[in-house]
Order: sequence, then structure tokens, then C-alpha cells
Amino acid sequence: MKNTAILLRFDGTAYHGWQTQMRDVTVCSTLKQAIEKTVGHAVSLTGCGRTDAGVHARRYVANFRTDSTITMERLPFALNAHLPGDIVVRAAAAVGERFHAVGSLEKKEYTYRIYNDRHRDPFERSRAYFYPYALDVDVMRAAARMFLGKHDFAAVRTQGSSVKSTIRTVFYFDVEKKDKFIELRVCADGFLYNMVRAMVGTVMYASRGKLSPDEIPALLESRNRGLTGPTVPACGLYMTGLWYREGVDAQWLSQ
Amino acid sequence: MKNTAILLRFDGTAYHGWQTQMRDVTVCSTLKQAIEKTVGHAVSLTGCGRTDAGVHARRYVANFRTDSTITMERLPFALNAHLPGDIVVRAAAAVGERFHAVGSLEKKEYTYRIYNDRHRDPFERSRAYFYPYALDVDVMRAAARMFLGKHDFAAVRTQGSSVKSTIRTVFYFDVEKKDKFIELRVCADGFLYNMVRAMVGTVMYASRGKLSPDEIPALLESRNRGLTGPTVPACGLYMTGLWYREGVDAQWLSQ
Repeated sequence: MKNTAILLRFDGTAYHGWQTQMRDVTVCSTLKQAIEKTVGHAVSLTGCGRTDAGVHARRYVANFRTDSTITMERLPFALNAHLPGDIVVRAAAAVGERFHAVGSLEKKEYTYRIYNDRHRDPFERSRAYFYPYALDVDVMRAAARMFLGKHDFAAVRTQGSSVKSTIRTVFYFDVEKKDKFIELRVCADGFLYNMVRAMVGTVMYASRGKLSPDEIPALLESRNRGLTGPTVPACGLYMTGLWYREGVDAQWLSQ
Repeated sequence: MKNTAILLRFDGTAYHGWQTQMRDVTVCSTLKQAIEKTVGHAVSLTGCGRTDAGVHARRYVANFRTDSTITMERLPFALNAHLPGDIVVRAAAAVGERFHAVGSLEKKEYTYRIYNDRHRDPFERSRAYFYPYALDVDVMRAAARMFLGKHDFAAVRTQGSSVKSTIRTVFYFDVEKKDKFIELRVCADGFLYNMVRAMVGTVMYASRGKLSPDEIPALLESRNRGLTGPTVPACGLYMTGLWYREGVDAQWLSQ
């Protein structure tokens, strides 16, 4: 059985995330069916992370093992023929036996999109968080900087899934204004449950004057989720970048 | 009754165009209901053009008469509260008695978006025409230039609605490559039924070597729809620009 990695892009609006414990329709269950129809046997599918209902991915990696003889060039076309239009396989690669979509991950990037205008944009519904009040990008940047580095991020996670440690390292957390959008890009060696959405909520809180950027280090220290900003809606969140220690390189991942 | 203009943006995917003769759900019928709920009386609503099922608008103007005392500042918010997320009123303006959404039009711009890549993009389904084969932008530009000026455009229209004349003037028809998208922008003093989609189909035909740009003047002369390229899908088409002789200015329209 050959270990195979696939690079996906999906609009998460219609799905209950990558995978849940319930019988909901998920990206994983939809993709698994398409793979099994294509390769002709049952597969075990591993995704690079759990995404919540409504969260999107411009890049997402999964891996599975197959004895199919279909070429890596041909595989995306075959899979896409069995997939709905909101999930697309962009590339496939034969990877070493040790490659694991989560275990081989070095770091990940998420992007959060805010549509900041007086009126909604019909083309951005379910694709960005519509926020009609003034936001100060400079204050947002100052707040975002406070999350950089190695910290205990318990104050910006939702409890639920058990993790061994709440220590993570954030490599960058950039805030950029592009016309009527504000985009926040954050890269870390791992993310706790709802961590990006709580960090963005905290940065927006700072911009609205509900807390000062300088207070953020103490809020992180407190490990108290009640003191930081709200969890912003899932629809603005995109997985946008992945870095692996082995198996697939940056060029393949940038497709 | 005060004459009122509104500036709209809509995702046309779910609608049978602006208006049809049948009882389908249209942008016009949906908007009319929202206006009547807001102003409290029946209105007659005029749109700036018929758009087909699935066609979008980044800018679209309609007008109606009302005796409501709601301010122009407040009106978009009130209307949007009664509208689904795929139709948004961006602005409203009190206009002179003579203003008519079609009759006062000087020219219009449509943009056609092609997503030109090997695999689909889930975020562009219903938003761009997915075309996975090679296109040559230089040939497309040469073909597009052949449509400039005053011509009889009978060879690039679908018969159906009766018009007095098939003579129109095309002011520009630009082709631009932006990453994996090819965008075609065309501005004219008016458009025949399906004219933009048939012109884009003809430009793509030229790029695929099925006809030479030099042949296009003779094809237009022939007035024979059977000789030009196919009508490309509605999902790639957006109304993007409007110019009026009176009533609303360029700044208001650029919102």
C-alpha cells in the first residue's frame, strides 16, 4: 500500500468541519467516499487538522494508503469527478512510508478575513466576517504583536478536546488592510481549539478600546478565557499555509 | 411621490435573472417585496437592464417612487433588513422626476471572469467560468479589438426579445490576465441579448485557433450567429459599471 498525500481546497460553508464524532456530513466523510470510489477499496484518511463547521481551506493536506496504480498526475482529476464543487483536490504526491498529515507538520498558517464596510457584500457572505464598525489597523497590529513567541495560550482556546500542553509558539501574526478587507495571518507550530478565532476577537476588542494591547501579556498569563475577546465567526477563517518536515515540499504545497 | 434610485450588488446564482415573464423568483421580485415592506405601499420597480439567470452584479441601479419619509442614508439599512444575503442595497439617492434606470443610461460595463487553471477553485464555483485549457491573452486582445466601435452586432446576439436596432457602439473591450483569472471588460452604449457572452465566446474561439481575429469583421458583417463563437456560461458575467446622463453621478455609482 503506497502512502499518498493530497492537497485540497474547500469551501467549508456546507460542512460540519473536517471531522466530528457525529454522523454529520464532513469534508472527511465526503472525500473518503470519493477516494474509495476512485481506488476501489476502503481507505483510512488522515487530515492535517480538525477544522470547525464553516471554516474554509485554501490549502489542506490529507494522506491515505492505496494499492491503486493510478498516476499522481491523474489522481486529482479522478477524485474531482466524484467530489461536489465545494471540495477540490489540487494535487497528489507519492510520499514516504513515515509521512503523516498531522505528525509530519512543522507549522501551519491561518488567515482570518474581515469585511469592514457599512453594508454587506453579497459575494462575501459565508466567506468573510462582516463587521460594519470602525477598526484601527495600527491598534490591531500592536495587539497582534503581543501574541508573538512561545506562550501558554490557554486564555485563547475553547476547552473541549484534551491536549497535553497549551504551550505554542506563534511565528507571525500580521494585520493587513486591503481595500474594504482586513486580513489577519497567523503562523504557529500548532493551534489550540478556537485559538485563532479567540486571538482575532481579542485583537478586535483592542481596536474597539475594550482592552489595551499592553494588557494582553497579563491576560495570557492569567490563562482565563473569560478575560480575552470573543470567538469570532467561523466563516472568516481559512487554513492557508502548511509546512512539512518531510514528504512534500513548499512548491507542491503552494499550488 | 419622490423618485428614488438605489444601487445594488447581487450574487445572481439563486435567481432567474432580474425579471422574467414567468413566476420564477427574480432579483426584481425579491427586491420589490423588501421595498414594499419598508415603505408600506406598493411600488413599481425599474431595473437598469435584464440580466439572465445566474448573472451577477457588482453595480446595478433601480428606481421607484415612494411617499415614505425615510432618509436616503437610512433606506439601504432598512431594505437590507428585509433582503436575503445575496442581494444588498449599497446606497440610495433622491433623483429628479425624469430619472429612469434604463432611459437615463448613457453606457454600461460588463466584466466576464474566466478561471483558467487545471483544477477548479471551490470559491469560484458559480462566480467564474472554469476553463482548463490554454488561452492566449494576446490573441484574445487582438480578437476583442475587432469589436470596438459602431457595428451591427446581430451576429453576437441570441434572438428572442425584439429590438428596434442591432447597431451598438463598443467603447472598450479589454482582456487582462490576473494570476489564474482572465477578465474581459466591455463597455458599450447598450447590449443585445447575450451579446457579451457571445463576444467572449468568439474571443475564446479565436484563442483556441477556431477562427482568426482578422475574420471577425466579416463575421459581424454576415449578421449570422451561427458563424461566431458559443455563448459562454452566465456564472462568469457581472454587471460592473454604469454611467447616467442625469440623476446620479460617478462617485455615487462607484460605491
